[in-house]
Amino acid sequence: MNEFAPVASDEAVAIARILANDHVADIVEALNREPRATATELLCEVKFERLVEIFDQPELDAAPELMLALPRAKAGKLLTAMSVDRAADILRELDEPARSELLGALAPQLRATLLSILGYPEGSAASIMTTEFVSVPSDWTVGRTLDHIRKVERTRETVYAIYIVDPETQLLVRSTGLRRLITGEPDDPIMSVAPPDRMPVTVSPLTDRETLAQTISKYDLLALPVVDHGKILGIVTIDDIIDTMIEETTEDVHRFGGMEALGEPYMKMSFLAMVKKRAGWLCALFISEMLTANAMQGYESELEKAIVLTLFIPLIMSSGGNSGSQATSLVIRALALREIGPRDWWRVALRELPTGLVLGAILGVVGICRIALWQYMGFYDYGAHWPLIATTVGLALVGIVTFGSLSGSMLPFALKRIGFDPASASAPFVATLVDVTGLVIYFSVALVILRGTLL
Amino acid sequence: MNEFAPVASDEAVAIARILANDHVADIVEALNREPRATATELLCEVKFERLVEIFDQPELDAAPELMLALPRAKAGKLLTAMSVDRAADILRELDEPARSELLGALAPQLRATLLSILGYPEGSAASIMTTEFVSVPSDWTVGRTLDHIRKVERTRETVYAIYIVDPETQLLVRSTGLRRLITGEPDDPIMSVAPPDRMPVTVSPLTDRETLAQTISKYDLLALPVVDHGKILGIVTIDDIIDTMIEETTEDVHRFGGMEALGEPYMKMSFLAMVKKRAGWLCALFISEMLTANAMQGYESELEKAIVLTLFIPLIMSSGGNSGSQATSLVIRALALREIGPRDWWRVALRELPTGLVLGAILGVVGICRIALWQYMGFYDYGAHWPLIATTVGLALVGIVTFGSLSGSMLPFALKRIGFDPASASAPFVATLVDVTGLVIYFSVALVILRGTLL
Repeated sequence: MNEFAPVASDEAVAIARILANDHVADIVEALNREPRATATELLCEVKFERLVEIFDQPELDAAPELMLALPRAKAGKLLTAMSVDRAADILRELDEPARSELLGALAPQLRATLLSILGYPEGSAASIMTTEFVSVPSDWTVGRTLDHIRKVERTRETVYAIYIVDPETQLLVRSTGLRRLITGEPDDPIMSVAPPDRMPVTVSPLTDRETLAQTISKYDLLALPVVDHGKILGIVTIDDIIDTMIEETTEDVHRFGGMEALGEPYMKMSFLAMVKKRAGWLCALFISEMLTANAMQGYESELEKAIVLTLFIPLIMSSGGNSGSQATSLVIRALALREIGPRDWWRVALRELPTGLVLGAILGVVGICRIALWQYMGFYDYGAHWPLIATTVGLALVGIVTFGSLSGSMLPFALKRIGFDPASASAPFVATLVDVTGLVIYFSVALVILRGTLL
Repeated sequence: MNEFAPVASDEAVAIARILANDHVADIVEALNREPRATATELLCEVKFERLVEIFDQPELDAAPELMLALPRAKAGKLLTAMSVDRAADILRELDEPARSELLGALAPQLRATLLSILGYPEGSAASIMTTEFVSVPSDWTVGRTLDHIRKVERTRETVYAIYIVDPETQLLVRSTGLRRLITGEPDDPIMSVAPPDRMPVTVSPLTDRETLAQTISKYDLLALPVVDHGKILGIVTIDDIIDTMIEETTEDVHRFGGMEALGEPYMKMSFLAMVKKRAGWLCALFISEMLTANAMQGYESELEKAIVLTLFIPLIMSSGGNSGSQATSLVIRALALREIGPRDWWRVALRELPTGLVLGAILGVVGICRIALWQYMGFYDYGAHWPLIATTVGLALVGIVTFGSLSGSMLPFALKRIGFDPASASAPFVATLVDVTGLVIYFSVALVILRGTLL
């Protein structure tokens, strides 16, 4: 032992104690706080059993990198001992040739299972399923099933959901729960503790994460079987679904804020990667927004004649953006919750049209009062034609808020129609969409109302 | 039977068949689609056992109203047979005197339990917990516990989590799972199938929904015990947590869109209620945004001298709002996931400052190129001083995007500091915050650069 580093070795002892005794979730949290090099060192000290538990936690940051830092033989043993779904997650994030090397070190059967999971698109049910579930032939008894479960308990992600398959065809016929199983007598047939006339709720290998969450929540299940042509390939457990729900919410919030989803913790992301994720959308929005400069150029002669009109441009444009952002957030969420479907766009439009008119009228009245108040109180002089200007602002607000609500609510439908996720519609996206039209509406109203006076 | 309504009665038969055979979650979905009056009628036809299952689904819309439509005696029986947490949910939404009337019809013990749950603030762990869990004294054997579970299985929301309490003090000492229990021998003490040296993960009665979701996801549990002074009051099960997570995401999306959370499905909400929820924030934002008109008035003489400056106002303002919206969404989510804490504001500020500068510089360069391009190609003539105008726009963009990123990222911290939910920070809120300052930055830069030429 190095006598010049007594503190470090004390620390190492303390950390080793924590690694042995704490709840694995707390250990993972502690490891995530350490620099990569320290985490690697610590992991070398951990007993193998514990190592498996640690790598089984999806919360472990940079798990693929940490695994590569282990000796290859140990990494192979680890992948074998881990739950299949987590092993697939880690392999998915590895680049070649590391992925193939690790896969090559595994037993042929496990390798085949992992390769088939890796073959499904990311985020699909099959890509997050585990193949470690309990399934028994329908001619077994309750007692035999219980014995089987006792034997395999340690190697199964859940034993609470029990899938019953036809002994000949291997087709899934029923599902039951351990709670029902223990109420049966040992000699009862397993089918006697399954619901008599109801097929299990299943999903297909390509079902997306959002549908998984909705299905498991709707039917109050602990696991969802992934079924292909009637045969059960694996199951997705509720705790994996909660993890993906939290991830998905983060992605949605980032996208609604007008950027690519980070996909990594904010503080851990490198500066350049962060700028890259944000600059793309920011530039796209900026370039679209340049159309406002073109629109303004088109109205330059009006602007020169009635400079007072420019005073209200920011106010009017932001109102369109705000009402659009409200409508978009409502529709994104209603679509995600399946409260409305893609074909309900016209119902939504029929709701947003009057809503926009009323909201626009409210803002219009507030705006007119503001101008009248400033004029009367002498805060500012809008000139002899101030009532016409106030009317212009008021009417423009009705038009812009209505247009904002309507286009904000239609944007998610339009995105869905052309094959994008409706949740890609962001507040800044809607604002940009509404801004140019907002200017055109404002100046058109002004041209009608102020013609012969100011314009 | 009324012979003038044969169709209705055929329909009634068909519906009765569905009500008897379909999965209860599908029945609830079908009921939600019917008008209130039809739903009430249908529910009168349903067998009592099924009725309990239907009301146990949190997805049932307007459950309190439907319950009131039942005869009082039936409603009382229903509340008794339902799971305690759902009964509390329904009672919470009822107004007086209906709530007291229904409570009065219940057995004293159940009434006391429900009243204590109702006493906790909405959204807290205790307000959504159920008291129907399995707990056994620590001196029981595995066999006795299994017998107990077999007996109470039907009346417990989950039997997969088993809580072990001290027989004397009733304090919670361990928790275990049914999967571990069945691996033990009948004569083993129950403590032998519990983790030897680890106290169960618990929450307090006032723990909020977000922490519940994070805790259950972190420790991969199926239920969380709600503990007060060491005694277990109830448990929150994972399916209830999923339901509240979906609800919470909806609220967050609505609020980030710049409005009060609807709290009801979009298509079911009355027109007036919807306008009310949206008009509040829209007006508040509108009134704050009026400051932009004041700011513009302050620069009127500059505007008159250099009308060309107005052309870029929408472009520049929207860039500030967009970068702010990105930063806000990042920080809201990082705070919610506990990646950063309230004291990390300065670390975030130190990240956002350079990020904002780089993003602003990128947009600035794009903006300058746009102006130069238009000038060279002859699309528009910005006058002899166009390089100065381009410089003004470029530098203003750097300032505004930096300010937007910085204030957008600080807003959630500020809200948290003054006691609000950081998720109340919305994209429109940030845009409004940034707009006035954006104008001031733009005109200040213009005054410095264009003094002596245009201004």
